[in-house]
Amino acid sequence: MTKLTLGFVGLGAMGQNAARQLLLAGHRVQGFDLRQESLQTFAEHGGEVAASLAHVGKNAMGTVIFVVNAVQAEAVLFGAEGLAANAALGHLVISCVTMSAADAKRLAARCRASGLVFIDAPVSGGVAGAAAGSLSIMASGPADALEACAPVFAAMGSRVLNVGTEAGQGSTFKTINQLLCGVHLAAAGEAMAIAERAGLDTQQVFDLVSESAAASWMLRDRGPAMVMRTYVPVRSAVDIFVKDLGLVMDLARDLRFPAMVSAAALQSFLGASGAGLGNKDDSAVTEFYRLGASHHDH
Amino acid sequence: MTKLTLGFVGLGAMGQNAARQLLLAGHRVQGFDLRQESLQTFAEHGGEVAASLAHVGKNAMGTVIFVVNAVQAEAVLFGAEGLAANAALGHLVISCVTMSAADAKRLAARCRASGLVFIDAPVSGGVAGAAAGSLSIMASGPADALEACAPVFAAMGSRVLNVGTEAGQGSTFKTINQLLCGVHLAAAGEAMAIAERAGLDTQQVFDLVSESAAASWMLRDRGPAMVMRTYVPVRSAVDIFVKDLGLVMDLARDLRFPAMVSAAALQSFLGASGAGLGNKDDSAVTEFYRLGASHHDH
Repeated sequence: MTKLTLGFVGLGAMGQNAARQLLLAGHRVQGFDLRQESLQTFAEHGGEVAASLAHVGKNAMGTVIFVVNAVQAEAVLFGAEGLAANAALGHLVISCVTMSAADAKRLAARCRASGLVFIDAPVSGGVAGAAAGSLSIMASGPADALEACAPVFAAMGSRVLNVGTEAGQGSTFKTINQLLCGVHLAAAGEAMAIAERAGLDTQQVFDLVSESAAASWMLRDRGPAMVMRTYVPVRSAVDIFVKDLGLVMDLARDLRFPAMVSAAALQSFLGASGAGLGNKDDSAVTEFYRLGASHHDH
Repeated sequence: MTKLTLGFVGLGAMGQNAARQLLLAGHRVQGFDLRQESLQTFAEHGGEVAASLAHVGKNAMGTVIFVVNAVQAEAVLFGAEGLAANAALGHLVISCVTMSAADAKRLAARCRASGLVFIDAPVSGGVAGAAAGSLSIMASGPADALEACAPVFAAMGSRVLNVGTEAGQGSTFKTINQLLCGVHLAAAGEAMAIAERAGLDTQQVFDLVSESAAASWMLRDRGPAMVMRTYVPVRSAVDIFVKDLGLVMDLARDLRFPAMVSAAALQSFLGASGAGLGNKDDSAVTEFYRLGASHHDH
């Protein structure tokens, strides 16, 4: 298999795991992150730490970007030390960032103007999927660029969908994926909380609904935390869904689409975040429905 | 195994199948329905057709009621020819009807006053589950009555939950089950419709989300109909969820519980029903989001 030299920016929980998969696959990876401890962990697993953002991807065919949002991605690309000023012409920008289709299109256009090639490749599967190299990758971009990225995707993910040739298509796929994840989480939170309010045994309710036509992946995965009302470990945070359902709302507004159920789900995440639970596990969305009742956070 | 003599009222699609399971298990079943063709089908499978509602359960230990709602159940129990006027003291009323907890409590109290014993035993699993004898049954009622019903439940269902000793508890379980089913259906409808509006390949979107953290049982089961935009066969109708999410709203109001996501989901079913799709398959809820675009109903 071709061994590539790659840049990698954003070594948080997911990025760190995804970068490790690239290292395990034998690729050479030059990593950067603003957090020193993230760089240390990266180095311990065989990564080359770039001295600064300006050094990332100097001699690489492309750079994987695994930051939190479009604003951070834009800084990585077009900030003072960004890739646009330092990478070679034709450098592949492999964006695994969850952002709006509008932002993906805009960044792709700016990349094009700077001689970079933007790949819109958001992922699904969370920290666990990244650790297992089993992410789903929803990639759109020029066909030859996607082909060149195939070894990168193969290392990080177990399912790679080629969803189109335009930036924005990958992000729209991811937005719709998050619509369902967010609504299912809010619905699970609503169901478990109303069960408790009605005086039912919530564990028995969970046992029933997680094995009936009422089941969802999110309910099965996050339901036990809702029954216990303990929100550690943090798999994904309440505020991640504030962001991701916000992207759904932006898309819906752009399309003049009445996404009522998603809008209601967003309100429950906003309520939980506003109650101080923004950095708790996303299962804490159920606490929105139990305001006033104390929860257990060990 | 004990062979019982049972009454059975309500031989629609689900009831017919459930009654057949009782016959297959060797029980003697006296059936009644207002529709002549339902009685005919029932007789063809070995059921005894009761001459009128007044004859149902004359010599039976109990009567299974599989009608559509509390109003119909009340008529079966307390109408002119109803069980209260004709059945023996201590007759078991096995209500598999989806109704509000408040109605279940009210009917149970009226039964008690008339010498009947009401079992609140709604089911989940649909027509298919009824045909396979694999319904989930959420039963609440006096412990000895539940015990006496065990052979009945064993014939109709594969999972029998004893959820309490009071009428209303079973119905609350079922209401919460329907909360999740209804929200998941509306979310699937919203997701597939916005995917189409955004110009994505809806089949490809379905393939992704039905196998990711975005998956739900309802999405997997009803998603293909939403992609094809064909709403036959009718597994459960749009108007069933207008009713069932209405029960969720009633419960939430009684409990002073803000069930926002369910409320939004109900609006989408109301919209679909108001557009003339009430008797279509529940997957037609997605058409609410595509009003103006024609769908294909073969």
